Amino acid sequence: MSLLVVGTLGIDTVETPSETRHDVLGGSAVYFSYAASFFTSVRLVGVVGEDWPPAYTDLLRARNIDTRGLQVIPGGRTFRWRGRYLANMNDRESLETHLNVVAQFDPVLPDDYRRCPFVFLANGPTELQHKILDQCTGVALRVADTMELWIRTQPDRLADLLKRIDGLVMNDSEAKLLSGEENLVRAGHAVRQRGPKFVVIKKGEHGAMFFSKHETYVLPAYPTPRVVDPTGAGDSFAGGMMGYLAEQGNFEPATLKRAMAYGILVASFAVEDFSLDRLIRIERQDLQRRMEEYRTMLSF
Amino acid sequence: MSLLVVGTLGIDTVETPSETRHDVLGGSAVYFSYAASFFTSVRLVGVVGEDWPPAYTDLLRARNIDTRGLQVIPGGRTFRWRGRYLANMNDRESLETHLNVVAQFDPVLPDDYRRCPFVFLANGPTELQHKILDQCTGVALRVADTMELWIRTQPDRLADLLKRIDGLVMNDSEAKLLSGEENLVRAGHAVRQRGPKFVVIKKGEHGAMFFSKHETYVLPAYPTPRVVDPTGAGDSFAGGMMGYLAEQGNFEPATLKRAMAYGILVASFAVEDFSLDRLIRIERQDLQRRMEEYRTMLSF
Repeated sequence: MSLLVVGTLGIDTVETPSETRHDVLGGSAVYFSYAASFFTSVRLVGVVGEDWPPAYTDLLRARNIDTRGLQVIPGGRTFRWRGRYLANMNDRESLETHLNVVAQFDPVLPDDYRRCPFVFLANGPTELQHKILDQCTGVALRVADTMELWIRTQPDRLADLLKRIDGLVMNDSEAKLLSGEENLVRAGHAVRQRGPKFVVIKKGEHGAMFFSKHETYVLPAYPTPRVVDPTGAGDSFAGGMMGYLAEQGNFEPATLKRAMAYGILVASFAVEDFSLDRLIRIERQDLQRRMEEYRTMLSF
Repeated sequence: MSLLVVGTLGIDTVETPSETRHDVLGGSAVYFSYAASFFTSVRLVGVVGEDWPPAYTDLLRARNIDTRGLQVIPGGRTFRWRGRYLANMNDRESLETHLNVVAQFDPVLPDDYRRCPFVFLANGPTELQHKILDQCTGVALRVADTMELWIRTQPDRLADLLKRIDGLVMNDSEAKLLSGEENLVRAGHAVRQRGPKFVVIKKGEHGAMFFSKHETYVLPAYPTPRVVDPTGAGDSFAGGMMGYLAEQGNFEPATLKRAMAYGILVASFAVEDFSLDRLIRIERQDLQRRMEEYRTMLSF
């Protein structure tokens, strides 16, 4: 089944302890849709400026990612982010964030986009996430991401959003902030009780946790020795997870757990190089091979 | 098979965000041997002062822990530690550490102790760890723990120790310090290449990693919503792991992985109350039930 995503398309500058890369392809919707494209067709909603290289759009199109929902604003400037990773490669500081054309984005979805059964609202303004849900009909599964900025600045609209979605994906510090709980197990269930049927907490290099009414579990990250650039790991995780669910066409508990595992594995490849550079070089069968290793790793 | 452990027996004062407990039973060898006693008989080597409550020794003896190797120093004072946990319950600061009688401890092992096939050198002065190995003969498996203090102050003796042991257990920050590697997968293998056949890196609430020449894996912590006091979690992990290996009487790769899982589960109980208060209330069948949940959690 097809999968709709709204989120950012951006141009990133990434500083790591060993290397800095300027003006590389990034953005939550970019990582998400590329990751999901290993599993299913993706309909992308986003906005860029005149400075957006058309080659980036071509790269996505070549992956069966529908870019009719991508607006190019004449005279506008694309979302830009600059960040620096600390030595542990897990913590980072955002040095610059320029929303640019994203600030005024008011999408109107193409007709067939509105009937997409699987919808993912990548990290972005909460109001924009509401606007997408307003236009969709007959959605089977609505999942959203959010971040500290929106938790702090739009708590009421975020509370409304939690009642409209089936699943929420967020990282550990965001879950603590939103719930007021320091213990992640309590935090996950506390967030779940505000609306979503399930909550996923991403823990970076430590994996991800899942919470539903009847299930609590944690899956570790795949232990890769080659962490080059963690940017987009969380979005790649979500893309792998949602892509697999859309491919399977259901979200039964067993499917959800396998989807979590695929998300973890796509993310483990994503961090092995800057931007999409590693994901571009792998195929579904590479994911499959790593899945077999991962299953073996967790069997005893 | 029986299991020998040398380490500290202490009296701890533990401050958590919600509660402070004064003068409770603690120490690496205490947590280790209690945890191991779910699986096998333990021979304890350690030293305490005149202030040591005999009831603590009785508590250990009641668990089939042989305390003939426990020296009581007349006029001496027992090892004391005072620590404070941060809000996340994973990071802590040591406020006071008084080695007291441990500083001059020079153990002479009873004859039958020397022939114990499984030996664990809990965290303590590196020289003391060497002294134990010097007295043992025909050991099948030698495993040690260490910590920042000894890595910084006794690097050469620690390097010698790494060549005499089969396995090393340490936490993530210690592994980074010892190896100079920030990536834990690289850190684990770098430490392994200095001598031990396997290395275990404990990651607190995030589980534990295992490294041998042919294996790299990570197992997550059991997600308990009730983390009351993490003191002794690492020692309980090691006790569960070594206890299970000694019970099985081998250290084949499959046994080692199950041992890691048991270590994780014993530790998950240990953190659910102060001191040994939670471990005292469980039985082997509680571990078994949690093991079934844990296996289910990791199956997909």
